[in-house]
Amino acid sequence: MQRKALERAWDDILRDPLPGRLAKPRSDHGLTMLIDTGLGVQETADLVRLAGAYIDFIKLGFGTSKLYPTDVLQEKIALLHSAGIDVYPGGTFLEAAVLQDKWREFLLRCQQLGLRTVEVSDGTIQLSAELRREIITTARELGFNVITEVGKKENDSHLPVSTQLQMIATDLEAGAYKVIIEGRESGKGVGLFDGNGQILRDEFDELVKSVGNPKQLIWEAPLRSQQEELIHLFGPNVNFGNIKPHDIISLEALRCGLRSDTLRYTL
Amino acid sequence: MQRKALERAWDDILRDPLPGRLAKPRSDHGLTMLIDTGLGVQETADLVRLAGAYIDFIKLGFGTSKLYPTDVLQEKIALLHSAGIDVYPGGTFLEAAVLQDKWREFLLRCQQLGLRTVEVSDGTIQLSAELRREIITTARELGFNVITEVGKKENDSHLPVSTQLQMIATDLEAGAYKVIIEGRESGKGVGLFDGNGQILRDEFDELVKSVGNPKQLIWEAPLRSQQEELIHLFGPNVNFGNIKPHDIISLEALRCGLRSDTLRYTL
Amino acid sequence: MQRKALERAWDDILRDPLPGRLAKPRSDHGLTMLIDTGLGVQETADLVRLAGAYIDFIKLGFGTSKLYPTDVLQEKIALLHSAGIDVYPGGTFLEAAVLQDKWREFLLRCQQLGLRTVEVSDGTIQLSAELRREIITTARELGFNVITEVGKKENDSHLPVSTQLQMIATDLEAGAYKVIIEGRESGKGVGLFDGNGQILRDEFDELVKSVGNPKQLIWEAPLRSQQEELIHLFGPNVNFGNIKPHDIISLEALRCGLRSDTLRYTL
Repeated sequence: MQRKALERAWDDILRDPLPGRLAKPRSDHGLTMLIDTGLGVQETADLVRLAGAYIDFIKLGFGTSKLYPTDVLQEKIALLHSAGIDVYPGGTFLEAAVLQDKWREFLLRCQQLGLRTVEVSDGTIQLSAELRREIITTARELGFNVITEVGKKENDSHLPVSTQLQMIATDLEAGAYKVIIEGRESGKGVGLFDGNGQILRDEFDELVKSVGNPKQLIWEAPLRSQQEELIHLFGPNVNFGNIKPHDIISLEALRCGLRSDTLRYTL
Repeated sequence: MQRKALERAWDDILRDPLPGRLAKPRSDHGLTMLIDTGLGVQETADLVRLAGAYIDFIKLGFGTSKLYPTDVLQEKIALLHSAGIDVYPGGTFLEAAVLQDKWREFLLRCQQLGLRTVEVSDGTIQLSAELRREIITTARELGFNVITEVGKKENDSHLPVSTQLQMIATDLEAGAYKVIIEGRESGKGVGLFDGNGQILRDEFDELVKSVGNPKQLIWEAPLRSQQEELIHLFGPNVNFGNIKPHDIISLEALRCGLRSDTLRYTL
Repeated sequence: MQRKALERAWDDILRDPLPGRLAKPRSDHGLTMLIDTGLGVQETADLVRLAGAYIDFIKLGFGTSKLYPTDVLQEKIALLHSAGIDVYPGGTFLEAAVLQDKWREFLLRCQQLGLRTVEVSDGTIQLSAELRREIITTARELGFNVITEVGKKENDSHLPVSTQLQMIATDLEAGAYKVIIEGRESGKGVGLFDGNGQILRDEFDELVKSVGNPKQLIWEAPLRSQQEELIHLFGPNVNFGNIKPHDIISLEALRCGLRSDTLRYTL
């Protein structure tokens, strides 16, 4: 589909302070994934009209998509696809299906619903490397775009960086499109964030140094301070996940230097 | 009214990880009360279409219903009633009416507006046991479903557990349907929660041990950690209050084991 | 335009507990400025229908208005103006224009878009007193209502109270309508608020004591505790800024004594 360029009222007189922000379609980097824990259909349509140009993926958080009335779910999927936004169920939902030994049925139902992306994770369950690879491969064969996630949702089962690196490499080799680094909805006391949401710099640096191409990663970074720090490190097109619906425009402003925290880079 | 069962797209292949969650109508337990501090009519309709099956009561927080344009208030009431959701003004509003010696007029206006439930509380004002009983009894005689609340909104006037137990017993005896345990909107530094939102376990255990039937209580528990802990203690059908609109689906996911925090119970 | 009085369902039987709250139009004090970091058009219409009587200004936060599709921006402006609400771009956006030496073009575009108010600030950039005055004067000559802001968005460049007082006096003399005291969206670790959002009372008292007329100020006070404290000090018609959309009705309830925190003043 040919999409007409986004017309914005100020672009002919003012450039974005931070240059280089990519427009859609963004297949490689510059991605923003929103976490949706219960947007109604009209609310979604309203958000998309305002900010659809800044949303690449909408994740229906954890198992919430199981709770939708079928018609509401179908309408949201159709609405988002027609706006050039991919939508997919949260990884925890697939984990629940694995526990019931129904992950193939899960994938087939995703296919029936017209979904094009799935997330494979083991934030809660134990998942052997073999089964993880099998799920990724099967999903790829069914035509899905596969995003995987690395990290545990409970801090007491924190993964060593070497394990995370191994999983990232294996997932990409098995056909994953991107790998998400776990940050949950809170961004605190999980993954690479301490209890105050500060980045654990030693582990973070070790991870980034060893990852071949940081564009392969999506950072779950719900807090503004985290977003600012990652833009500072990686530039305006770093991939973000778990952005809250009402933070979409604020994040885009951060990416473009249209907010104090990043406008100051240009001084 | 005969309500058709909620059709959900995954239910034929996957069960909810935590079993036993009750469907509507839930008259005895499994109740979710949402706190509404300013949803527009369209926003309400949108939320109800998505998640109406998971909302039993909507409380128009504190005195906000006095601030509504009359037609907006009437539309919201009609919309919610037709969706099988009960709506009622916050307890603080009735307290303001008591201060003006207009609580009877307050109840009659609620009746004129078609409201079916009222809340009786003394979170801010002093209310004698006699007047509290008289208000409950009068409201019952007028045909209202009466929910009462126990607890003070200021932490420095914290009620001893023995007093709370006495009030719960007296309210139920006077005809209250359920008794809410105060948690405010914040869930911090109030009632049975400390300044970080942690449950004060000694007092909590004392209260729970002595209450005959915990189904008679509704816990105001706005924080995810509080919701998770109460589901852990009482199961998926514990009654919750002061749930924020955008947390309705997340809470239902917690109840059903469709989120990490409770999916892990099944491991 | 003659606006009919707001009809509210309880006003004939109950008065607002805190008396004296002003109705619209409020040109001098009692102002509420909402910060909008991404409301859709329908969401805005829905909010205005519910709470338009309690909103005087909507600020499109920082540079977010540059990110709007042109038609969405135009619709929001028209919608808000017809509801008697003034809308203006955040000060950071004008600061970005100053950095590109395009602030005159910025003002002209505001004029083309039908905007009637602009904000002049230097929360991020350095702005000489001369240029600040020139921008204010030019905007006034173009017919704009000018709101200025005093304070830095980074706490390590905290302004002494004497400097703030000087700027307030100069801005008002140059034709500013009101002066905003910086509080950002968070209300923490910025301006007159410490890292926990508590008011720095020594500096605050010094500022208030020396300002001739506190009605000339608008306080950015996003936290309930801050709102409550300022109402306690200045009464129900203190001017507030950076109120979040879903806090509009809650703030009005605070102003009117319809919430515990201020109802208790009347005991």
